[in-house]
Amino acid sequence: MNSPDWSHRSFTAPFTATGRSALVPAPPWHYAGWLLNVAFRFDADAGVPLVPPAAGRPVGTGCVHFADWQACTNGHELLDPVLAQYRETIVVLEIERPGGDRGMYCPAIWVDQDISLLRGMLQGWPKKMGSTWLTRSLPLEHPAAAPLRAGTRLGASLAVKDRRVFDAQAELTGRPGRPLGFLAHPTLGAVGWPDLRQPDRLPDILLVKPDIAGRVGGDWHEASASLQHTLHPGEDIGLLGPLVAEDASAGWLGLTVTGARDA
Amino acid sequence: MNSPDWSHRSFTAPFTATGRSALVPAPPWHYAGWLLNVAFRFDADAGVPLVPPAAGRPVGTGCVHFADWQACTNGHELLDPVLAQYRETIVVLEIERPGGDRGMYCPAIWVDQDISLLRGMLQGWPKKMGSTWLTRSLPLEHPAAAPLRAGTRLGASLAVKDRRVFDAQAELTGRPGRPLGFLAHPTLGAVGWPDLRQPDRLPDILLVKPDIAGRVGGDWHEASASLQHTLHPGEDIGLLGPLVAEDASAGWLGLTVTGARDA
Amino acid sequence: MNSPDWSHRSFTAPFTATGRSALVPAPPWHYAGWLLNVAFRFDADAGVPLVPPAAGRPVGTGCVHFADWQACTNGHELLDPVLAQYRETIVVLEIERPGGDRGMYCPAIWVDQDISLLRGMLQGWPKKMGSTWLTRSLPLEHPAAAPLRAGTRLGASLAVKDRRVFDAQAELTGRPGRPLGFLAHPTLGAVGWPDLRQPDRLPDILLVKPDIAGRVGGDWHEASASLQHTLHPGEDIGLLGPLVAEDASAGWLGLTVTGARDA
Amino acid sequence: MNSPDWSHRSFTAPFTATGRSALVPAPPWHYAGWLLNVAFRFDADAGVPLVPPAAGRPVGTGCVHFADWQACTNGHELLDPVLAQYRETIVVLEIERPGGDRGMYCPAIWVDQDISLLRGMLQGWPKKMGSTWLTRSLPLEHPAAAPLRAGTRLGASLAVKDRRVFDAQAELTGRPGRPLGFLAHPTLGAVGWPDLRQPDRLPDILLVKPDIAGRVGGDWHEASASLQHTLHPGEDIGLLGPLVAEDASAGWLGLTVTGARDA
Repeated sequence: MNSPDWSHRSFTAPFTATGRSALVPAPPWHYAGWLLNVAFRFDADAGVPLVPPAAGRPVGTGCVHFADWQACTNGHELLDPVLAQYRETIVVLEIERPGGDRGMYCPAIWVDQDISLLRGMLQGWPKKMGSTWLTRSLPLEHPAAAPLRAGTRLGASLAVKDRRVFDAQAELTGRPGRPLGFLAHPTLGAVGWPDLRQPDRLPDILLVKPDIAGRVGGDWHEASASLQHTLHPGEDIGLLGPLVAEDASAGWLGLTVTGARDA
Repeated sequence: MNSPDWSHRSFTAPFTATGRSALVPAPPWHYAGWLLNVAFRFDADAGVPLVPPAAGRPVGTGCVHFADWQACTNGHELLDPVLAQYRETIVVLEIERPGGDRGMYCPAIWVDQDISLLRGMLQGWPKKMGSTWLTRSLPLEHPAAAPLRAGTRLGASLAVKDRRVFDAQAELTGRPGRPLGFLAHPTLGAVGWPDLRQPDRLPDILLVKPDIAGRVGGDWHEASASLQHTLHPGEDIGLLGPLVAEDASAGWLGLTVTGARDA
Repeated sequence: MNSPDWSHRSFTAPFTATGRSALVPAPPWHYAGWLLNVAFRFDADAGVPLVPPAAGRPVGTGCVHFADWQACTNGHELLDPVLAQYRETIVVLEIERPGGDRGMYCPAIWVDQDISLLRGMLQGWPKKMGSTWLTRSLPLEHPAAAPLRAGTRLGASLAVKDRRVFDAQAELTGRPGRPLGFLAHPTLGAVGWPDLRQPDRLPDILLVKPDIAGRVGGDWHEASASLQHTLHPGEDIGLLGPLVAEDASAGWLGLTVTGARDA
Repeated sequence: MNSPDWSHRSFTAPFTATGRSALVPAPPWHYAGWLLNVAFRFDADAGVPLVPPAAGRPVGTGCVHFADWQACTNGHELLDPVLAQYRETIVVLEIERPGGDRGMYCPAIWVDQDISLLRGMLQGWPKKMGSTWLTRSLPLEHPAAAPLRAGTRLGASLAVKDRRVFDAQAELTGRPGRPLGFLAHPTLGAVGWPDLRQPDRLPDILLVKPDIAGRVGGDWHEASASLQHTLHPGEDIGLLGPLVAEDASAGWLGLTVTGARDA
């Protein structure tokens, strides 16, 4: 489609000869952040409408991750951090894959920056915009610092289109925590793009799994937690019914995504 | 990929059995809005890096549209207008198509809502997030109303990642205005999605043209205008060099998009 | 406090010798906007905690105004409209003044721009930040335009700190509407500033009434409306109990505030 | 002004019988955060228009602080962190007080939450809204984590009304840093509120100094830094002329404000 002397150099739109404007540069993508993870139990059957059978079958456990990220490619984003920082809320459901293995599947995720929104969609994280807030642990003994020790309380929330969807409160127990949600199992996502030339046709979806390199951190701090979910007219997550918080943890995580593979 | 008894009903991610969560529902998409259009001249050669040769060749004219939209599908969005309203700044460049026809090509556009961001990408509008402000004409004679009559002054601005990119000031002349930019010629866009399974490969792009039905409005009001462009480290639009405002108009427009076709 | 050769020229902080940085310039303040007004009934006694007795006593009627404003002083704001435009949600309660007159009192209002926030506080409008959305009527016959005629449906919402507080839906009847809320009676507000040198002392409050000049518009369009209120942990408005929508109108309004007086 | 059986319990507006809605609760106010501090030199005379003579006289040094705060009163804000977290950019200028002592004076500060905006004004911090971004150091060895060690690079920016005002880049040296700006000297601010009943009269200003208790942290990490300032049409800070970065540091700080006193 391009002439010999002109080819675009953009990983994503806009497609220009320099590639500089592309919303998302090519991987590797480096992510480091602070997470509050709240594992929950729900009626496994209720999760079926949210998980393509080719991915697997919900087993009745899942996790909400509230994350405060810093991400970059070659590092220039850390010098202009509006390009690097974002917050997001991730829901993953544990599944039994068709072959019997366990995995996680992401049916819903909300973020607050465009770069992350499209970068996620490419990985099968079905991102939409949402407003996430998340208490941070600062290395200080002070009433506003929420330091990492037994008894510290943390909160988190998600709002989508000006409606609260999740509220979580957690209290650190002082014990080591478990890796929960996408930290425990490889996570699958579904990628698909409709073709407007056939507007009546829904897109085929492709199940992929990110290639992750260089994961660091993971000293999770156990917490007891409560989780409130409020129905939202534009979200299917309410189909899960009551979400019962079972376990929680908080901590820092770093990882690098280099691509994806069929899942 | 889906089992017989489960198929997703989502036009875009997330892909669920209800389709309710999909960020973008299927067309038709109805748009109505208030626009300030500033036509500009630039060095035609400078536009080459921004326009795929298969689309055509820049001829040295273009337009910045500042738009304050209301959009809906079946109308429910107008009852919860956080779903309907957004502002955007659109740049289009006039091109000579390979066969000699004139058209417009959109190399850059910035919007402030996720629904519009993805909906635009599907149509070949390479949307990223940006903050657009645009004085509105209210049907009042009052110092703050900017009524539609000779002498009224309007302003508009775009910021991307916290940096001003465009500033425009216009003064209504009291004369009818011309349709400018995408109002004058069919507009092409480039659609393409990278495949993370091949992260080193840039996406093929497809040139499409939206199918537009039911256009209303278009009583444009002529304005004299100035346009300031400030270089942005993440945007290629600066390659165009100086943009000289040549004509401007303001007014209301309604249109409906039903799909797209090859362009 | 200032030396003879240096006096600040700021109406509000910061206080500098030029006054240019002041968040709010001195009046006159010109406002023009589009409003959806929903009058409601409630238990008059329930409003007592929200209205200082010196202002008056609630009579059991009130109004929520959803407003999409453009405001300016000398007009420069209309050329850089991030300085001019904002949306807000206003609650006013009808009161019987100590002397028997009727008036309105504003116990709660939420806005999305800092200039308006402080400018309102100075007038006794107790503004906090909130996110207001409001369907606009555009002068087009189009599914997304919500034109001003019988049968058109409009929506509005308020969220405060990421929680929905109000949702309204309205349908234009095609008949003229009544002036409601602050459009019907002069509105009082309470002004007060604590002195941090006495942090245990609550501020004295002063009841004021804006001086309004040059009101234009007011061709209100009647609507039937519903109003939903959701309790918010940081707001007292829930003390009013159920709010029953009784009347509604939409239209444009322009007015100018030149100062205030004791009320 | 209030009747015996009704007194408002609000520290700030709105003034209600419960006080629950008040934008700012009474102190003590606890703050904990991550800061990047860039000390600069400028022409001392150029600072005179920004500093009331009663406060003192600029000596030609100052500091820009980029801060990512968590703040609370009784701690409930940490469980709903939209109430606790905000970012701000603080400019302070070193002054020689009339009696010869050194102090700091704050002529400009921009924040992104309403609670902090008003809370700051009460302390003489002349806050307006602005968008601050600030790279954070996470306790991980990862390309996106910006860990606290020699060679790590950090960035920060401020935008006001969609225009960049400050950009800073810093590189940690691995050496201990100095307390800079408001960390080095007590900081004065000017408090004043116009009275709309006399709209032609500018407010008297009162110089105050916060009462600070319980300061913790302060293990500053030295950095080399550059600072870019871009003129803004609505800000006086440009009067300072060129700002030459001289020193920089980053680290965590906690402090508690209990009130203020005359300065």
